[in-house]
Amino acid sequence: MPVEIPPLVRPSRLRRRGGLVGECLAEFLGTLVLVAFGCGVVATAVAALPGSGRTTGPTTFFLGAGDWLLITWGWAMAVTFGVYVAGGVSGAHLNPAITLAFAVRRKFPWPKVLPYMGMQLLGAFAGAALVYAVYHDAIDAFDHAVQGPKTNGHTLASFSIFGTFPAPYFHGGVWGPLVDQIVGTAFLVMFVVAVIDLRNTAVKANLGPLVIGFVVAAIGMSYGANAGYAINPARDLGPRLFTWAAGWRELAMPGTLAGSFSNYFWIPLAGPLVGGVIGVLVYDLFIGDVLHVRALDAELPQPGLTRPVTTTDEE
Amino acid sequence: MPVEIPPLVRPSRLRRRGGLVGECLAEFLGTLVLVAFGCGVVATAVAALPGSGRTTGPTTFFLGAGDWLLITWGWAMAVTFGVYVAGGVSGAHLNPAITLAFAVRRKFPWPKVLPYMGMQLLGAFAGAALVYAVYHDAIDAFDHAVQGPKTNGHTLASFSIFGTFPAPYFHGGVWGPLVDQIVGTAFLVMFVVAVIDLRNTAVKANLGPLVIGFVVAAIGMSYGANAGYAINPARDLGPRLFTWAAGWRELAMPGTLAGSFSNYFWIPLAGPLVGGVIGVLVYDLFIGDVLHVRALDAELPQPGLTRPVTTTDEE
Amino acid sequence: MPVEIPPLVRPSRLRRRGGLVGECLAEFLGTLVLVAFGCGVVATAVAALPGSGRTTGPTTFFLGAGDWLLITWGWAMAVTFGVYVAGGVSGAHLNPAITLAFAVRRKFPWPKVLPYMGMQLLGAFAGAALVYAVYHDAIDAFDHAVQGPKTNGHTLASFSIFGTFPAPYFHGGVWGPLVDQIVGTAFLVMFVVAVIDLRNTAVKANLGPLVIGFVVAAIGMSYGANAGYAINPARDLGPRLFTWAAGWRELAMPGTLAGSFSNYFWIPLAGPLVGGVIGVLVYDLFIGDVLHVRALDAELPQPGLTRPVTTTDEE
Amino acid sequence: MPVEIPPLVRPSRLRRRGGLVGECLAEFLGTLVLVAFGCGVVATAVAALPGSGRTTGPTTFFLGAGDWLLITWGWAMAVTFGVYVAGGVSGAHLNPAITLAFAVRRKFPWPKVLPYMGMQLLGAFAGAALVYAVYHDAIDAFDHAVQGPKTNGHTLASFSIFGTFPAPYFHGGVWGPLVDQIVGTAFLVMFVVAVIDLRNTAVKANLGPLVIGFVVAAIGMSYGANAGYAINPARDLGPRLFTWAAGWRELAMPGTLAGSFSNYFWIPLAGPLVGGVIGVLVYDLFIGDVLHVRALDAELPQPGLTRPVTTTDEE
Repeated sequence: MPVEIPPLVRPSRLRRRGGLVGECLAEFLGTLVLVAFGCGVVATAVAALPGSGRTTGPTTFFLGAGDWLLITWGWAMAVTFGVYVAGGVSGAHLNPAITLAFAVRRKFPWPKVLPYMGMQLLGAFAGAALVYAVYHDAIDAFDHAVQGPKTNGHTLASFSIFGTFPAPYFHGGVWGPLVDQIVGTAFLVMFVVAVIDLRNTAVKANLGPLVIGFVVAAIGMSYGANAGYAINPARDLGPRLFTWAAGWRELAMPGTLAGSFSNYFWIPLAGPLVGGVIGVLVYDLFIGDVLHVRALDAELPQPGLTRPVTTTDEE
Repeated sequence: MPVEIPPLVRPSRLRRRGGLVGECLAEFLGTLVLVAFGCGVVATAVAALPGSGRTTGPTTFFLGAGDWLLITWGWAMAVTFGVYVAGGVSGAHLNPAITLAFAVRRKFPWPKVLPYMGMQLLGAFAGAALVYAVYHDAIDAFDHAVQGPKTNGHTLASFSIFGTFPAPYFHGGVWGPLVDQIVGTAFLVMFVVAVIDLRNTAVKANLGPLVIGFVVAAIGMSYGANAGYAINPARDLGPRLFTWAAGWRELAMPGTLAGSFSNYFWIPLAGPLVGGVIGVLVYDLFIGDVLHVRALDAELPQPGLTRPVTTTDEE
Repeated sequence: MPVEIPPLVRPSRLRRRGGLVGECLAEFLGTLVLVAFGCGVVATAVAALPGSGRTTGPTTFFLGAGDWLLITWGWAMAVTFGVYVAGGVSGAHLNPAITLAFAVRRKFPWPKVLPYMGMQLLGAFAGAALVYAVYHDAIDAFDHAVQGPKTNGHTLASFSIFGTFPAPYFHGGVWGPLVDQIVGTAFLVMFVVAVIDLRNTAVKANLGPLVIGFVVAAIGMSYGANAGYAINPARDLGPRLFTWAAGWRELAMPGTLAGSFSNYFWIPLAGPLVGGVIGVLVYDLFIGDVLHVRALDAELPQPGLTRPVTTTDEE
Repeated sequence: MPVEIPPLVRPSRLRRRGGLVGECLAEFLGTLVLVAFGCGVVATAVAALPGSGRTTGPTTFFLGAGDWLLITWGWAMAVTFGVYVAGGVSGAHLNPAITLAFAVRRKFPWPKVLPYMGMQLLGAFAGAALVYAVYHDAIDAFDHAVQGPKTNGHTLASFSIFGTFPAPYFHGGVWGPLVDQIVGTAFLVMFVVAVIDLRNTAVKANLGPLVIGFVVAAIGMSYGANAGYAINPARDLGPRLFTWAAGWRELAMPGTLAGSFSNYFWIPLAGPLVGGVIGVLVYDLFIGDVLHVRALDAELPQPGLTRPVTTTDEE
């Protein structure tokens, strides 16, 4: 009964025009922005802010609720503006877990999956390098002043600017952080597909990137403190590879944490990829079938975190 | 004078299509999201955040303004995305107090009231179970490290992740927390009916769920610290039943608080149900009559916290 | 050249229909909401929050940046939802300084000025009474536990929940707080007339109340700490009269502050009324003339903080 | 193939009507607002807030995460409302780095560049004077109470209310703060051109000023703590000249910082001008070419941070 189908967006001409090269450039720049601002706010909270106001560096390291608010809002803004920058060209996935979930359940073309993921990883690596270029004075001063165990002169606290690791209360257990990453990414993808679902309550006025930033704020506030809410394999692996090269060594890769994990790096890779697919499946099971997702799939434009330009807003 | 009536939304075809089963699935998933993120942010503030940055757990428990900001923004986001997920299908009540108020004054069908409430309670229970699955390591470490009275090894502080209880300055008085719940829920429902009232200043561009999240932020900031702003019987009873089963026992059910209440559980049930009805009545008394609510009621679509899809935005 | 004039909103039929009685009811309820949530968040920060987490009350009183963020966001939400509740009926002035400025430069009918102001004062008084009804246990516990000078058993800190007073560094000088109130209210009115000016960049999608809440957040963050940003004679005088009656006595009225002011109450009355008029004049001088305000005034609907319902959004 | 071009905004009649004088008045008032609120929130965090709650002034100076949140949200609101005030007339550049970047890559008329920059500087100077007029009691009390080195009775902490300086960990190195300013302003301009790019995901409903405020929040949170995120030559030089005249002398101009810089003032001038041009070039290289910027440039209206009034929203 196609006459019952609510009006959908038509495929954007812009996206087709740019081609895969344009989409790859946009994914690179968007993910660079995401990591440059996300890791930038942690650098502010951990190293730059305490250092700028004190004549001597801090001697202990502790993240309180104020720091957590700063970090979660900062990451939210990082995602928002990564999506605004790349949205009109590539759909602004900026996350291999989203690209995979869109391929599995939203007809994102499989041949584009690896190019998208590759550019996301490169963008995340470049973003981490930019953060280090801007903050290496702050980081060096912090690592020199703070007390505690150091690897090659670097602390786990300064690694937390770039990559993720689990809270000490997991005592090296794999399932705790893995479930955390699966649940967090499942909610990420569930909320993203809800917010962009034009048959549900999709955000208009091109404020979708802002609301998707709030999605990441929500996950950071509610599912972030266990293991640093990577919820994005590129966001974690890119900075992890950079910090391995920049001197953090085994702290970064393979992620050797004193007394607990000997190779943590694979958890923020595998968890989000699994969790993202679960998220879209749960949405389609509880909400999507009601909205006749399957009947409409063929008519959807290439999926992304933003709405194409030439939609009902404009025409 | 029907020609004077401003244009209203037409009943959504989507809602009717899904039927009660689809609406129940949506209420379940939406309330699960609400509790999974709402209780998740309290778990972050109480147990995970202090634990992740310290080598030893905290020994005292205190919520300051920073914690309160984190909790109130986190609950706001929890409501926002619960509504985005369920909105297009069920109207996203997610709260028996809203369902009751809509039945009393907005022609929500009475036969749907109990099914909606039941699914809200089930969703809240499942959301609490998910929070425990993700945070039980953090909670166990916290309960072990923190000092003070414990019930079955659990503290009142860790119960506060899931359920609500009144501040110590009430000294066991019933009226203080009960008035608090009535006032808070009255404002919740008053603001919700204002924000979705198309004859007042209803939010467009499908940003209603975001503004309804801000409603809950407002109540948390201004009417939250007395008794934990349950303002939702399902949100309190679901996690309360789960924690009773998970080991908190009488702290949770019937809510035995040393030196004050022996059975607190009924206050966050009764208060919100009464307060919600008061809220819609006050709105209709002061604002609604001016807007000729009664004359227009028959033309309203099924009430919900979101606008249906096929409205003036789309057509 | 009227053909050059951009399309304006047409006068709302709703506003006319309600009549002055409906507008008075809306101003009363909207200002009640504004004060109930604004004073409520200060009650949370000052009395309820420290009390709920501690077994003994606080013994010193200090507002830090976290408290200030909580208070400024809380007041922003208070204004937002006061405007959402009343906007469609009365235009949601909720502030005698705005009513006066609209009468002076936006053709708000002079015969309505005193009824609007009267209802705003009554609403503010009722809002303060509601805050006291909900928080008197917290306030009593706070005033009992905190140390320092007390009037009739009440502290200046607990008075700050309801009314405003200047920082100690003014040492009783009149000009400091008076200039502060004039500047703060001038910016309030300047921003409000900018945000609702359809020939400038007026907010659409009925998100005006949210942005007007952010206006008050901005003033609280940047021009709030000198003297408590009353910027609204009703918001200050209503709670001041209530607290005078409830026992704070000369602390509230006429505002006797040890070692500085003997009658402070008139400053948050006179300053905002003068500042509001200055704000609209400065806007019209720098921006409005460019936008040909005077030529268009006759065509504007009754001014308010919201856009009428039956505008270009709907038609 | 012009038929492939998505609909663009048409040039606003309002802007042309006002002429350069009207645009200069708007740039002056908008930048005044920006500095009056931006420096106002730092005055609150540094001098007024600690002073208002204590009987004696603070004796040490330290900005924590809570202060930083207050400052970054305050600056975000400052930009938002500066843009709302001036947007419909001048496009609300409010920043010489944006004016230069728009001249280089968005066809902003070169003859207007110096008048715009001049009025921005005058507005920033006047904004700083207003902050001093409102906060000089707080600043004097702070400078008297706080300990540490003073210049002419003033501290570097109270200078931070008005102008910027680098964190101590740079030890006087030029490249660290210069790179910081270049990177921060490059992102500022990149995000601004993304958010207003109608062929990408430009914000509608006239919420652009709010999102541009969030851009500045993002930069403050992630690239602010190194050197105070001037990212705007007028915002730094105007208050710097004012504080030089008001008594801070060499601390302000030429920016002599004990043990490190002898003339710092040129870095927040040169860095943003260079960075802004880099930002728009990077956007056009990665995103703009895909969107066929060059082919469309001729049809764009005069660039600004807001959308003109008479666009597709209205017509």
